[in-house]
Amino acid sequence: MKRLFLAISTCLMALGLQATEVKSPNGQIVLNFTIEDGRPTYSLSYKGREVVRPSHLGLELAKDKHASMGMDERDLMNGFVLEKEEASEFDETWQPVWGETRDIRNHYHEYVATLTQQWRTAPPKTNNGARLQPRLHRRTILIRFRVYDDGIGFRYEFPQQPELNYFLIKEERSEFSMTGDHTAWWLPGDYDTQEQETQESKLSEIRDRYRQAVNWGNSSVAVFSPTGVQTSLQMKSADGLYINIHEAACLDYATMHLELVDAQTTAMTTKLEGNSNAYTPNPTPSDYPLPEPFTFVSHLTPDATGLKGAMQTPCETPWRTVMVSDDARDMLSSNLILNLNEPCALDDTSWIHPTKYCGVWWEMIVGRGSWHYTNDFPSVQLDKIDWNKVTPNSTHKANNENVKRYIDFAAKNGLDQVLVEGWNVGWEDWANMWKRDVFDFQTPYPDFDIKMLNDYAHSKGVKLLMHHETSSSTQNYERHMEKAFQLMNKYGYDAVKTGYVGDIIPRGDHHYSQSMNNHYLYVVKEAAKHHIMVNAHEATRPTGICRTYPNLVGNESARGTEYEAFGGSRPDHTCILPFTRLQGGPMDYTPGIFVTKLSEWSDNRSWARITLAGSLALYLTMYSPLQMAADLPENYEKFDDAFQFIRDVACDWDESIYLEAEPADYITVARKAKHTDNWFIGGKCDENGHKSTIKLDFLDKGKKYDCTIYADAKDAHYETNPQAYTITKKVVKAGDVLKLTEAPGGGFAVSLIAK
Amino acid sequence: MKRLFLAISTCLMALGLQATEVKSPNGQIVLNFTIEDGRPTYSLSYKGREVVRPSHLGLELAKDKHASMGMDERDLMNGFVLEKEEASEFDETWQPVWGETRDIRNHYHEYVATLTQQWRTAPPKTNNGARLQPRLHRRTILIRFRVYDDGIGFRYEFPQQPELNYFLIKEERSEFSMTGDHTAWWLPGDYDTQEQETQESKLSEIRDRYRQAVNWGNSSVAVFSPTGVQTSLQMKSADGLYINIHEAACLDYATMHLELVDAQTTAMTTKLEGNSNAYTPNPTPSDYPLPEPFTFVSHLTPDATGLKGAMQTPCETPWRTVMVSDDARDMLSSNLILNLNEPCALDDTSWIHPTKYCGVWWEMIVGRGSWHYTNDFPSVQLDKIDWNKVTPNSTHKANNENVKRYIDFAAKNGLDQVLVEGWNVGWEDWANMWKRDVFDFQTPYPDFDIKMLNDYAHSKGVKLLMHHETSSSTQNYERHMEKAFQLMNKYGYDAVKTGYVGDIIPRGDHHYSQSMNNHYLYVVKEAAKHHIMVNAHEATRPTGICRTYPNLVGNESARGTEYEAFGGSRPDHTCILPFTRLQGGPMDYTPGIFVTKLSEWSDNRSWARITLAGSLALYLTMYSPLQMAADLPENYEKFDDAFQFIRDVACDWDESIYLEAEPADYITVARKAKHTDNWFIGGKCDENGHKSTIKLDFLDKGKKYDCTIYADAKDAHYETNPQAYTITKKVVKAGDVLKLTEAPGGGFAVSLIAK
Repeated sequence: MKRLFLAISTCLMALGLQATEVKSPNGQIVLNFTIEDGRPTYSLSYKGREVVRPSHLGLELAKDKHASMGMDERDLMNGFVLEKEEASEFDETWQPVWGETRDIRNHYHEYVATLTQQWRTAPPKTNNGARLQPRLHRRTILIRFRVYDDGIGFRYEFPQQPELNYFLIKEERSEFSMTGDHTAWWLPGDYDTQEQETQESKLSEIRDRYRQAVNWGNSSVAVFSPTGVQTSLQMKSADGLYINIHEAACLDYATMHLELVDAQTTAMTTKLEGNSNAYTPNPTPSDYPLPEPFTFVSHLTPDATGLKGAMQTPCETPWRTVMVSDDARDMLSSNLILNLNEPCALDDTSWIHPTKYCGVWWEMIVGRGSWHYTNDFPSVQLDKIDWNKVTPNSTHKANNENVKRYIDFAAKNGLDQVLVEGWNVGWEDWANMWKRDVFDFQTPYPDFDIKMLNDYAHSKGVKLLMHHETSSSTQNYERHMEKAFQLMNKYGYDAVKTGYVGDIIPRGDHHYSQSMNNHYLYVVKEAAKHHIMVNAHEATRPTGICRTYPNLVGNESARGTEYEAFGGSRPDHTCILPFTRLQGGPMDYTPGIFVTKLSEWSDNRSWARITLAGSLALYLTMYSPLQMAADLPENYEKFDDAFQFIRDVACDWDESIYLEAEPADYITVARKAKHTDNWFIGGKCDENGHKSTIKLDFLDKGKKYDCTIYADAKDAHYETNPQAYTITKKVVKAGDVLKLTEAPGGGFAVSLIAK
Repeated sequence: MKRLFLAISTCLMALGLQATEVKSPNGQIVLNFTIEDGRPTYSLSYKGREVVRPSHLGLELAKDKHASMGMDERDLMNGFVLEKEEASEFDETWQPVWGETRDIRNHYHEYVATLTQQWRTAPPKTNNGARLQPRLHRRTILIRFRVYDDGIGFRYEFPQQPELNYFLIKEERSEFSMTGDHTAWWLPGDYDTQEQETQESKLSEIRDRYRQAVNWGNSSVAVFSPTGVQTSLQMKSADGLYINIHEAACLDYATMHLELVDAQTTAMTTKLEGNSNAYTPNPTPSDYPLPEPFTFVSHLTPDATGLKGAMQTPCETPWRTVMVSDDARDMLSSNLILNLNEPCALDDTSWIHPTKYCGVWWEMIVGRGSWHYTNDFPSVQLDKIDWNKVTPNSTHKANNENVKRYIDFAAKNGLDQVLVEGWNVGWEDWANMWKRDVFDFQTPYPDFDIKMLNDYAHSKGVKLLMHHETSSSTQNYERHMEKAFQLMNKYGYDAVKTGYVGDIIPRGDHHYSQSMNNHYLYVVKEAAKHHIMVNAHEATRPTGICRTYPNLVGNESARGTEYEAFGGSRPDHTCILPFTRLQGGPMDYTPGIFVTKLSEWSDNRSWARITLAGSLALYLTMYSPLQMAADLPENYEKFDDAFQFIRDVACDWDESIYLEAEPADYITVARKAKHTDNWFIGGKCDENGHKSTIKLDFLDKGKKYDCTIYADAKDAHYETNPQAYTITKKVVKAGDVLKLTEAPGGGFAVSLIAK
């Protein structure tokens, strides 16, 4: 690690103001910062091309009835003077507990602007008529920039000070002014769901596309603006720059959305329908000029009172990130988000491990079985039912026999764990009832013998993977969590999948608010005390906090494989996610559907828009330390030669090389399995197919490799012929070239085992 | 116990409808129930005099976006048909774990009306053009009345049924139509505070008095209507009937307020100022006729979303109670509220005991010391401070030396416990900051040696009494509670005083909402598992749930002695509380201030409007199993002869006889100490003084008693001469008469020790 003083220079920004210029280590990215009419303003360029036009920074504060320690509701928007500037360089290499690479370099130039606001208020009243001086107020904040070769991060910092101890955020107003009408891959901004399908459009088309982009049938929908979008937002400019806006280290702060100012913004006064949280779009406070069109303005997720944050100094916001490159592969290999997070906070991480698993799950998602155990009741109250006396419904899948079948399958195929959903009482009426006491996370259904099954699994070298669906009743989960974790410790579970389906309790709160983000982190921290890994579904999209808390081994936080049973996702879906959702951390996408036409084994007429070889590719292209083999054991047994790849593939890596990438088109990546000389390559493409030419120049010189290629057959197609694949074996060496053809909606997977 | 079928009769109600009539066991109270235009309607008379005019019952439901199991947002207001009537008698005598009497008779006539709503909705659409029948909906609720000799209780019951599984309450609309412009002792209806001073006025004067009745400087004020009042509401009719409206067994339901329909109600459209929760008064849904003037309509406390309740069938509301008598003493001796609660839910109650205590508290309230330990920081973050390195402020009172002084005092004077506030880190910025992580309830300040002090106390036969101020951050408290209770068990605490100062976290919720009431009960239940007694301050006013959970030994939930240091309360304050606040359960009023002029020992210029003898009386007139000797040890040492009464007085009773009572004027009560032959008598009066003539005809015939009378001296006066008292000793027997004069703001206390 080195931390050096860095020379900073001043330049004249486009608008004619003197600005400070900070260059990235390789000089290709240049940040400019200045104070324009009292407002902090930054801009960004890459290789001399403008990426972010001059954009304002600031926060609106709410009037605080709790203020009594010098707090003032004056906004942190304007009236700033640049009091001090500091610059430095930082360069270190660190090793993640798990990840895409063994080593991660964290090299940036840092610039910190200390900004001061001063104002006077009327003199206090006196009883004796004495004339007092007006009171002088003074408040200081810092804006910290880190300039990397692949982008920047910046955050607001609030030192503890007499005039700023507690404050409530009405809205953060960080602007990201784009240079033109970029192509964007976006999701509608939403306080409670991030499971919509990604839209691809010009920025100018977002408003018109918005209504159709929302799946209004999703009961969690809480959109807020026709130009609101989620991050990570991937864009591409007309001249070929890839630009990504996201955030890093969102811990005790509301998740950020972006609201686009477009040509129609000023005229917009109507309210959105069908959503109780609808509001009149208002991307700037009324007393500030509207930014230029194509400017994104931050929009935080509110709590039940509509407030966006309750802060106590000293504190800081998450990092706001802008990644940029002229090579799409750099979007995928960037570690900017991880680097902006704090180092690991856990003393002992020896119990954290990458995990391959299967589970009692897909058959319920598809509809061939149930999570719940009885149909006796229209609703249940957990403490009033003797579960041994109810009538079993015969559809309950978390039963001893079925779970043993999955354990046997896992043991036979080298899978580490078996997820079992529906093991605990309460599933009879768990969803969408806004029910507080929905689960106790401790009482198994009568047909799930928790001790026997764990013993049986352990005797075969397999663990069970715990499931805690909270139904978003976080208060209830927090009340039972400690005992639930103790139960896990007792029976030998070391990982839990959590879920947050439905509306939040405490009522009125939102999935991505400050308080909920605090809850998710609380769960991760408490789990760590019990040496439990967490895989949180429906929780906030991650922002790299797995660096700090590496027991957060996965999140869903996007549209996962389950949607293949709910109507399906587009073939390009998995070629977008690594550019967007995966920027913040791994996704428990639950890949591996071999029988894509669900009607082949169920009454479900939905189907997955992917070929079987494409499914194999996902184990490489969708990086995660937690990889599921999601299909049924009997479906895998039909294609055991292809399943060999899932048996073989690693889920932790020493090295990863993105060979090809284009958002929503194709991704090809080679990865070297941790602590081995073996490589695996995966390629995944959209509905148009793709041809890959792969130079194996990353292999060790002088070594030979047993190469097995799992490819789409010539006539393969995600719709008409998804199960047509070929398996080719040969011996290869460094410098050899593989030519592979991916079918529409297809892909390939290659294993290279060092001889 | 007996449960008999009871004949019910029908009669013609005043409005000419056929109604069912249910009489109380002694026949003096008569309930009438009927369905009037589809609306459940009841009325009540006492000794042939009308008490409650015909009043409607019903609930408005909120539209439920979570509905999916046959729920309908149709209100439970009208369209009802009386499907079934059942009547029965119940008579049992039960023994409370602690209380005013050893035995409590629970004798009532019960009437249950089963009501059905039916309606049709449009037939479902079909694809083939087939004509389907309109769908018939059917919903059943019960209204259960219990008619006692001292009043009635009624509640709504919601059986589990296909068309009513989950529902959200927009508002409960239970009416209590008064017969005239009664005198009322009322507090402004408020979602977050019940610490205002009681107002005495005619019902018609409430609206004009409302604004001045609110102490707007109280940061918790959340009033909702200029005719909103709290329960328990005590009234007196012009013809001398005492009428009290309250509720019983408010468990998982919002606390009820009452909104008065008066002559101006219909014209009222303005909003209240100074309160974010202000709303346009609307005591009935717009599509129902407004009730007659002098009708109270229930108004529940909302949650953060404005909803009043989230219910799952089978369930029921709390009991709504109307007590009535022509003798004010019956208001005080009534056990109606307790009787309407469920029997004790705890298997083992041997660890629950009445407690006399002193504490490190009053000197901080008065301002001579601090809860907090250091002045180093404008705000603190608990996990970032090394408390051993901060600068002590020298004002911190929960220090080893001071606590030992109190322990010595308790041991010397036979007090059971010593409360210590300010023992744990976090008090530097605990109040009114809306701070989530405000306390951990486990870390003592460096000058509070928790092990040494508990050991020291135990060696002297005294226990420490724990203090958990939550600052209303209930989420934080629930996160730490289990470990906090374990800490208490470890060091030998068996009681905790909790506090809920400030605005609630989860943000937007209110102190008396359904979710908060659930929280308070959760604390009581969890504490019981650890054999911990709970005394909750600022929590919801109680509704008799101490019968079911007798480890809830106290609540504040009203304006307590602390206000004597904040400007003082009126002399009649303690002559009102037993009629209002104490109806639901004991109050930790913390009596016993001997040095009423605080300036005698501090810089505080406030003073208690009570004589010293009056302070002694409170140990009788303000029944509680938890009684504090609140003043400083050094103040008690100055009046050790008077303090003898506090040493002697019991706080658990076999028998209680209210000898005299008039709201806001005077209360005189004689109580027989549990498991003894000793009696104690207390009399307390308002600012006008009072003369009592007490016939000792309740004493055991043939026994003699050492009688000690602590009385106001002739020239005593709460303002000019509060410490003038006399102590008289004599021997008395049954039939003797005591003539006692209470000074303005004074009282007396008598001990009668059987020889």
